[in-house]
Amino acid sequence: MTYQAPIRDIMFNIEHLPPEPEGASTGGIDLADMEAALDGLGRFCSDVIAPLSRVGDEAGARLKGAEAVLPEPYSQAYEQFAEMGWQSLPHPEKFGGMGLPRAAAAAATEILNASDLSFGLCPLLTDGAVEALLLTGSDAQKQKYLERMISGQWSGTMNLTEPQAGSDLGRVRCKAEPTADGTFAVSGTKIFITYGEHGLTENIIHLVLARTPNAPAGPKGLSLFIVPKFLVEEDGTLGGRNAVTCVSLEHKLGVRASPTAVLEYDGATGFLVGEENRGLEYMFVMMRAARFAVGVQGVAVSERACQHALQYAQDRVQSRPVDGSTKDAAPIIRHPDVQRMLLRMRALTEGGRALAIATAGWLDMAKQGSSDAEEMAEFLVPLVKAFCTERSLEVTSLGVQVHGGMGFIEETGVAQFYRDARILPIYEGTTAIQANDLLGRKVLRDGGATARRFAGLVQETEQSLQGGNAQAQAVAKRLSEARQMFEVSLAWLLETAGKDPNAAYGGSVPFLMLTGNLAAAWQLGRSVLAASTKLEQNENTAFMAQKIATAVFYAQHILVECGAEHLRITEGSTSLGDAAVNF
Amino acid sequence: MTYQAPIRDIMFNIEHLPPEPEGASTGGIDLADMEAALDGLGRFCSDVIAPLSRVGDEAGARLKGAEAVLPEPYSQAYEQFAEMGWQSLPHPEKFGGMGLPRAAAAAATEILNASDLSFGLCPLLTDGAVEALLLTGSDAQKQKYLERMISGQWSGTMNLTEPQAGSDLGRVRCKAEPTADGTFAVSGTKIFITYGEHGLTENIIHLVLARTPNAPAGPKGLSLFIVPKFLVEEDGTLGGRNAVTCVSLEHKLGVRASPTAVLEYDGATGFLVGEENRGLEYMFVMMRAARFAVGVQGVAVSERACQHALQYAQDRVQSRPVDGSTKDAAPIIRHPDVQRMLLRMRALTEGGRALAIATAGWLDMAKQGSSDAEEMAEFLVPLVKAFCTERSLEVTSLGVQVHGGMGFIEETGVAQFYRDARILPIYEGTTAIQANDLLGRKVLRDGGATARRFAGLVQETEQSLQGGNAQAQAVAKRLSEARQMFEVSLAWLLETAGKDPNAAYGGSVPFLMLTGNLAAAWQLGRSVLAASTKLEQNENTAFMAQKIATAVFYAQHILVECGAEHLRITEGSTSLGDAAVNF
Repeated sequence: MTYQAPIRDIMFNIEHLPPEPEGASTGGIDLADMEAALDGLGRFCSDVIAPLSRVGDEAGARLKGAEAVLPEPYSQAYEQFAEMGWQSLPHPEKFGGMGLPRAAAAAATEILNASDLSFGLCPLLTDGAVEALLLTGSDAQKQKYLERMISGQWSGTMNLTEPQAGSDLGRVRCKAEPTADGTFAVSGTKIFITYGEHGLTENIIHLVLARTPNAPAGPKGLSLFIVPKFLVEEDGTLGGRNAVTCVSLEHKLGVRASPTAVLEYDGATGFLVGEENRGLEYMFVMMRAARFAVGVQGVAVSERACQHALQYAQDRVQSRPVDGSTKDAAPIIRHPDVQRMLLRMRALTEGGRALAIATAGWLDMAKQGSSDAEEMAEFLVPLVKAFCTERSLEVTSLGVQVHGGMGFIEETGVAQFYRDARILPIYEGTTAIQANDLLGRKVLRDGGATARRFAGLVQETEQSLQGGNAQAQAVAKRLSEARQMFEVSLAWLLETAGKDPNAAYGGSVPFLMLTGNLAAAWQLGRSVLAASTKLEQNENTAFMAQKIATAVFYAQHILVECGAEHLRITEGSTSLGDAAVNF
Repeated sequence: MTYQAPIRDIMFNIEHLPPEPEGASTGGIDLADMEAALDGLGRFCSDVIAPLSRVGDEAGARLKGAEAVLPEPYSQAYEQFAEMGWQSLPHPEKFGGMGLPRAAAAAATEILNASDLSFGLCPLLTDGAVEALLLTGSDAQKQKYLERMISGQWSGTMNLTEPQAGSDLGRVRCKAEPTADGTFAVSGTKIFITYGEHGLTENIIHLVLARTPNAPAGPKGLSLFIVPKFLVEEDGTLGGRNAVTCVSLEHKLGVRASPTAVLEYDGATGFLVGEENRGLEYMFVMMRAARFAVGVQGVAVSERACQHALQYAQDRVQSRPVDGSTKDAAPIIRHPDVQRMLLRMRALTEGGRALAIATAGWLDMAKQGSSDAEEMAEFLVPLVKAFCTERSLEVTSLGVQVHGGMGFIEETGVAQFYRDARILPIYEGTTAIQANDLLGRKVLRDGGATARRFAGLVQETEQSLQGGNAQAQAVAKRLSEARQMFEVSLAWLLETAGKDPNAAYGGSVPFLMLTGNLAAAWQLGRSVLAASTKLEQNENTAFMAQKIATAVFYAQHILVECGAEHLRITEGSTSLGDAAVNF
């Protein structure tokens, strides 16, 4: 199960796709330094992490008493991961981090998760918890927890879901009773807690949503608590075991080495984060980071599937080419439909990567205080989460298909990518939740202003492409068409949502998929512009030619799906409503 | 894991979708009798087979020495299945069969496979072997084998694949040496043999492709042999064990209770079927039956996924409806996107079923000697195989999505449908193989004549729909548009294939998916006509209204995808070719 980090494509994206092409998102860090860091991570992942994925899938995480036992080689691998400082890559230098910009962090997340989604989930959750504490923790809390989390010595989790409260967090029942010493006694059951229990790190810092005694009902009565697995003394050493117990691990379709815990809190000592009743708001900080990262996981598993499929297609000899170019059976990569599948996989993967890295640039600009960038980032994050993960289902499925019967055999390894990917459009907010977020909070709330600004940016790229060669113009043609479908759909949604919310929200996922498709194509359009310039300068010509060819393929094979999405939204709302009456 | 056979929809299809609506395909058998038979099978499957699927998936098939051991309850279930005579349903009365028409047989295949794909594969392969022997076996061979296969006492297999010969059967190396007594000594390794070894039946009749000593190289040097696991004496009793050994079973992504065997033939006694070197031709008979049946498996697993998702959506309470109709959290079926997912699942399932049952009618007409019907059946079978199975991936994936996080937990059971379905677009000829078959043999070979006749039939339905109410006209509108895209694509393919076969075959799968989509929508259009008449007669009004609403939904949400397929074929061929250069 080999894997090579796609450093060249990643660096192309980091260099050319920040919101302002002058390199705003590099945060003053030299591209060469970033490349060196990512290359180092890439080599570590190829050597140490990628070989874990099969082993981990076969062994799975197992509960022994109340301890989650991970597949054996995970411990040593995690130790190396932490020692080499990879957990610290995106975090502030003040707490021991490397302080790399978010585009590089996204690339690191991709590389790690392409190697093994199950392994990658532990650092991913820690990143989210660090982000939440950075923004909402007290100075004392930051002091106490951050450095050890950023070093990878401790990990973090998010505890939201309960049996009756999945997408609907207003139904959370977990309780937090104030105690005499100013802490809280947290009680209740949390389910689906990723890395909720494990022995990779000395301590686990749970961030838990719970309800204080007189809190209002619903989502506005939730508070956020730090509940460490082991209490932490003033000097930073570990104290007693807290009253949180893992009572079960789930048997899952995929990411089987990642322990998904049911946690019982039985009067566990919790520390309030920020103010009471603002827990959900704080948790959204963590969720935004986690949602973005899950979108990147979609790109990651897609890239892994691409590499395996390409290799197999080059090796497997079967049937004569249809063009009669040889009388002998040829490697299947010579067959047009295999090429079509591989190109679809590659185009979707590169499109998703471009979207994610560009979005990282907007997130960094937002952090620097730009409210325009903040709005654009908020608009793009649900696209990264839902579009890249939904597409990863298609890419990993095609990966199986390219392998034919061998793809269905677990030992081949590509069936695992298909299984692993299936959680991505579900956790951290399902695709429907992302679509509601996009339509409700990011589009309707500002009357479509950000959405129109987005369309304007796409249009600028179209115009630049129209001045280019035939390939650039081919991309511009479909980009322009898709952007217009986006605008028509947007106008319809703005018009309809108030008077017929069911009709509007019945089109929310098609709208998200249309917008995600357009946003990815937009970034590939920008790639065409950058690659054309490089080609003129005779730089990396094979790579640049491939970037452009992939973008044209994307425009003509994938972006054209926007036509159907647009009809589903506008025309399809009535038939959806009519047919749903029969339920 | 409950399951209810959708008898009403099945009977609606059988009654209204034969090629000639006067009921040509019922073969003189009363609809009420057919319904009684299918209803009986449905009850047996709900009670006995459906509960096997989870058990079978968990236990899997295991090799013990050279014997494949199936999950324990399979034996008794199979015994009951055979005793009740279900294996005999589609086969000629002359050999003990019930002689039901193919539409009813397709329905029976659906019901059995919806209950458990792993179980259903054994009878499915036996059906194919019976079909091959009926058409190509000698009288003595028919006498010897057919009755016991049709009774379910013995099962059948097809042995095609070898490690180096998957889609490319010309590479088969398995040898058959003539012996003094007129039999052949068959030697070689066959892989991916479904139910190649098991103890459910007393004997297994392998049909094996092998090469006689002086046979020409390639596909035209293959002969077909009967190689029984136990030799059969003249009086029909079992003789000695033949030299065929199961050396391994595959560990698979899905259909885990179905034993997928590696078989070693070591001078096993084989009996030539028909003439030497015509084996592949004979095997195609078996393959056509098996391909059609695998398409029906796609409908089956889709139906099962639909039933589970609908049930869960009615039971699971989460979040307030977006229309503000209640202040409390509601069953998730009240949320528009859940409705959209469920309707998509239902529309794809009903569309696939309609296509399969209509195709069964053409197959029956062909059997009665109509060469027009033969051509149409040949055109439709690859659509049933590839379209219904590819769509089953989408339906089972949506089934997981409707369940949210619970869908990813194996105990819920719906992840299994997602895993099981993944083999369907691969075995019995991948989607690309079906698309090559469609384009090469069924479209180009007759210069598009059958394809144009197909389009003409669609157009007739459009015209009838145009005379109907607003819903019928809505279906007609999209049907007409899709049919025109089919015609434009067809013209382009006919024009291009000769001069640029790579360009044409790069569009073969999009063309198949376009054509399958159109063919399913055509049948749903015919359903609208039939249901409208019933509605006017006040018959089963709720069911008929739902049939119509589902068809409109299909037209506006699924049929609209033909636009993208058409662009992929015509415009997209260049970008495919350009991008593929970089491999």
